[in-house]
Amino acid sequence: MYDRTNVKIGLMHVITSIQNYQVKSWRKLHTRKHRKNEERFLIEGFHLIEEAVNSGWDIEIVIVREGVDIPSTLVQQNITFVNTRVFKEISQTKTPQGIAAVVKMREFSNKDSKFVLLVDAVQDPGNLGTIIRTADAAGFSHVVLGQGTVDLYNDKVIRATQGSIFHISITQANLSEEIKTLQEKNYTIIASALENATDYRSVEVEGKAALIVGNEGTGIQKEMIQVVDKVVKIPIYGEAESLNVSIAAGILMYHMRN
Amino acid sequence: MYDRTNVKIGLMHVITSIQNYQVKSWRKLHTRKHRKNEERFLIEGFHLIEEAVNSGWDIEIVIVREGVDIPSTLVQQNITFVNTRVFKEISQTKTPQGIAAVVKMREFSNKDSKFVLLVDAVQDPGNLGTIIRTADAAGFSHVVLGQGTVDLYNDKVIRATQGSIFHISITQANLSEEIKTLQEKNYTIIASALENATDYRSVEVEGKAALIVGNEGTGIQKEMIQVVDKVVKIPIYGEAESLNVSIAAGILMYHMRN
Repeated sequence: MYDRTNVKIGLMHVITSIQNYQVKSWRKLHTRKHRKNEERFLIEGFHLIEEAVNSGWDIEIVIVREGVDIPSTLVQQNITFVNTRVFKEISQTKTPQGIAAVVKMREFSNKDSKFVLLVDAVQDPGNLGTIIRTADAAGFSHVVLGQGTVDLYNDKVIRATQGSIFHISITQANLSEEIKTLQEKNYTIIASALENATDYRSVEVEGKAALIVGNEGTGIQKEMIQVVDKVVKIPIYGEAESLNVSIAAGILMYHMRN
Repeated sequence: MYDRTNVKIGLMHVITSIQNYQVKSWRKLHTRKHRKNEERFLIEGFHLIEEAVNSGWDIEIVIVREGVDIPSTLVQQNITFVNTRVFKEISQTKTPQGIAAVVKMREFSNKDSKFVLLVDAVQDPGNLGTIIRTADAAGFSHVVLGQGTVDLYNDKVIRATQGSIFHISITQANLSEEIKTLQEKNYTIIASALENATDYRSVEVEGKAALIVGNEGTGIQKEMIQVVDKVVKIPIYGEAESLNVSIAAGILMYHMRN
């Protein structure tokens, strides 16, 4: 192995140095600050990249580890090869598939979805990603992230969405204002909370509706609870103190949907 | 700081060496093999330890980092103090609370629960832990783990159960045999799958029932699908390919429960 940048192997150009400026710029996308500045984010794995392409997102570059086969769906993309050491440097997974991509952020159009999900300060990346995936599945095609919510472009969030980040519209907003706007558009706003709440099974939703779910520890902020139309809870039959927020979101979205 | 083992500070005995035999024995509990051999496992954090104590589990030792206050509920326990360096060595969390415990495994009594959950080869620790927490909440007080399922005593599984591991009965078994046994006891067995499945909303459950959920990638093994009483699926309204297994389990358990 020789440690030089941009060695040519036949016609294939392979980046072999972690000091390479491109490698450095990709690695910077591991932090929220740089993703925001650059308006780009990293994704990893065949499935996510294909979902991004199929959903019409703009892929700046596909980064492929030497020896990894490129699916025919991606050959039209701008592809760069790197060696194992470089790929390891930019990968954020334990067992990398050897393919990553830099994706350009874009304005999500504020889709006029019949069902909207509002997320108030969910902290865990896996929870947020799973909530977005479930919203997609349940036909809640617009998700609004309130302040204090974990960064949408965090690698763990994206991984847990399983590609749903590329399917639905996800915006960031002040949730109190969002609630007002939705109420003016005749949405029924339903909040999930443990106190002063009605059993969700007794609440039937007609017409347009939005669900709010809250932080893993503290739930939804009080000032929001006060302005929503209905506060619901899921009964606990056993000894668990509560449900995981993504599970509660799943049960409630499917209930509203039905 | 001096680096000697078992320095006495007043009456408080503090372990300060990571070479200490006890520290080594605790750290070994990070691996499944040793947990199985020793029939013990490590848990971390105030909440989990209190759940274990309140549920009558046998705590062998509580390990406390110097300077951490011990809740009154734990003062009756066998407590050992360690310094920061030693605690870091045994901790498996990013931001440790400074309290851990060694818990003795025990035979779970095979509770005669009206609702039973069977888990076929779920691989992700967070998924399994969340499924157990949800089963507890939904009153599925017996969970059976089939072969190929991630180790119940994995720290991430335990953390995601949020203490429900101490509330309900969790056994390991050959699921094909378990299905037979349950059917002989008049349980209706419902499997969650994507193919040849009925919309779950059209399936009503009366009497005793068991739900099977399967591996994140491959679902439930075919030979089991063939012997169950009903195969159900959750409709997908959006573009997501599927639901996360713990979300599907949550929606289905609550549906069966209602």
